[in-house]
Amino acid sequence: MPSKFVHTRRVEFNETDMAGIVHFANFYRYMEEAEHAFFRSLNLSIMERDEEGAIVGWPRVSCSANYKAPAFFEDVLEIELVIERRGVKSLSWAITVRRGETLICTGRMKTVCCRFAKGEAMVSVEIPPQYDALEEAPRDADG
Amino acid sequence: MPSKFVHTRRVEFNETDMAGIVHFANFYRYMEEAEHAFFRSLNLSIMERDEEGAIVGWPRVSCSANYKAPAFFEDVLEIELVIERRGVKSLSWAITVRRGETLICTGRMKTVCCRFAKGEAMVSVEIPPQYDALEEAPRDADG
Amino acid sequence: MPSKFVHTRRVEFNETDMAGIVHFANFYRYMEEAEHAFFRSLNLSIMERDEEGAIVGWPRVSCSANYKAPAFFEDVLEIELVIERRGVKSLSWAITVRRGETLICTGRMKTVCCRFAKGEAMVSVEIPPQYDALEEAPRDADG
Amino acid sequence: MPSKFVHTRRVEFNETDMAGIVHFANFYRYMEEAEHAFFRSLNLSIMERDEEGAIVGWPRVSCSANYKAPAFFEDVLEIELVIERRGVKSLSWAITVRRGETLICTGRMKTVCCRFAKGEAMVSVEIPPQYDALEEAPRDADG
Repeated sequence: MPSKFVHTRRVEFNETDMAGIVHFANFYRYMEEAEHAFFRSLNLSIMERDEEGAIVGWPRVSCSANYKAPAFFEDVLEIELVIERRGVKSLSWAITVRRGETLICTGRMKTVCCRFAKGEAMVSVEIPPQYDALEEAPRDADG
Repeated sequence: MPSKFVHTRRVEFNETDMAGIVHFANFYRYMEEAEHAFFRSLNLSIMERDEEGAIVGWPRVSCSANYKAPAFFEDVLEIELVIERRGVKSLSWAITVRRGETLICTGRMKTVCCRFAKGEAMVSVEIPPQYDALEEAPRDADG
Repeated sequence: MPSKFVHTRRVEFNETDMAGIVHFANFYRYMEEAEHAFFRSLNLSIMERDEEGAIVGWPRVSCSANYKAPAFFEDVLEIELVIERRGVKSLSWAITVRRGETLICTGRMKTVCCRFAKGEAMVSVEIPPQYDALEEAPRDADG
Repeated sequence: MPSKFVHTRRVEFNETDMAGIVHFANFYRYMEEAEHAFFRSLNLSIMERDEEGAIVGWPRVSCSANYKAPAFFEDVLEIELVIERRGVKSLSWAITVRRGETLICTGRMKTVCCRFAKGEAMVSVEIPPQYDALEEAPRDADG
């Protein structure tokens, strides 16, 4: 059962800004794209339906990024996701964006499993069994 | 009854690209923002509900732009919309984007009034009476 | 020498809008991404330097799209580019976006080869030899 | 000398996603737009030139957001910026996004004053005098 995933992604022209580098807000899109690719790699989708037809999704509670080096047009970036913590209702992700050996950006994201039934407010729910494949990463021996 | 509207809009940093100018795809967003501002100025929304609760909206059939001059960060742009033709089910828009005296971009957009009822495919419908305020522009005398 | 290219692209969540479909302005990004992928497939970049160090690029003169069917989150789209006409200074592209058998969108784009030397205004130039691989598509026998 | 600024901003259709709400990555754009509007309100720009012609700008070192409630199409949002700390070379911002009484999102951003001289690597520099108007907020009496 995986706790880690790497998504590879080329920087597009429309993601750069007049400073000649990837605009900082686009890294949050890269993180989400990697998250969705991770789900797909497990035959899961970020929006599933439960047995009663309600949508089960994963809205974000928080997100952050630390920028280490700029990324440029046509760079091939590796976006690594690690499930740092799997709670009863939530996932805490650690993200690292690299271009070869160069560290571009690190980040964190917390998502909560929520149920959207028609005509009702969204409520957080315990992570249902179809997501059992999403596993918390083992702590480092010296962690 | 208006056939014309001007929306004023400042260029944001995240809308520029590494060539130092507004990325060409953003002009389609500006056109749509101006269209929505026009609707709001008439107390209309781009998504209304009819008496049976179905959504009535205005998806695009086609859109085009001709680029005349670049736009830059912090430019204040005037986006002028004219209803060139009001059909039974559709609106044909002519758009002009200017920075002061400088013509930046011209465009055209065709939108169709559609009804989205739950569980049914979207169908085009005759423009309902709540949109009567949207009027075709008079032709030029020599037009 | 190629006159045609197909770029495959998955729809990302952040490219959808509240109507549940790919926002219309994103198709222009897809067209540009396909254009850049075509250039890369020929070991070219959309921004090259000439022997005097000036940048040679391909700004857009016009762009249009006709929307035939909506595209959805996680759709795999095929974006086909054809060089309809290669002029002395410009390229005219025809674009077709498909999801399997379903036609999503057709479009056209005209780009002009331009030289950006430091401190001078951008000027259109004859397409330099490094772009010889970009070839006009043969006309249909009955065209 | 101001340490606080409020930027008002309507949510555009293209900023929503298929969940029917503002896509989470767009809040970082809102924060940056508010920052730039703050600079403009003081007759400053986010990109100035120093006496030697080099560009002085404010790249981001880190950015984070906590999502409290969703925002919707046509919502009018108030984005409040406070300079929590003014360092020798950096600014630390606290951001609050509200729709009327409803708290939508809180965030933090750290930007560093940098000098971009032609042909040299970007270097962080002491904040030059033209930015003296940007003042650290007073601490709460009980802070």
